[in-house]
Amino acid sequence: MCEANAYLIIEDQEAQLVMESVDTVEPEEDGLRLVNIFGDQKFLKARIESLSLVDHKVFLKALTT
Amino acid sequence: MCEANAYLIIEDQEAQLVMESVDTVEPEEDGLRLVNIFGDQKFLKARIESLSLVDHKVFLKALTT
Repeated sequence: MCEANAYLIIEDQEAQLVMESVDTVEPEEDGLRLVNIFGDQKFLKARIESLSLVDHKVFLKALTT
Repeated sequence: MCEANAYLIIEDQEAQLVMESVDTVEPEEDGLRLVNIFGDQKFLKARIESLSLVDHKVFLKALTT
């Protein structure tokens, strides 16, 4: 399996782990819908900032609206 | 290893494979820098649209500026 952990960056704070074992990340309305390999879903007002796949990390940046 | 293939979506066209075995994707100036597990780099005027990690797919959307 090739899932990753998703980290949320809020402004200049340190990235926080928001979901483990993420499979899909898709845009939805004014944010992102994350789904992990267990089928759990999470909606975040954020965009995808960067990826480090070999490290299993996805960085999301919070939208400040 | 947990790399993915990167596909670029240009407007309403079908997604095109632009790089295989991608490790990192990072924002750079007005686009993205992709680096694969072999150290090859590619710069694209695009943003990260969505992820499907278990399928090893990263979808990028071309910026139309």
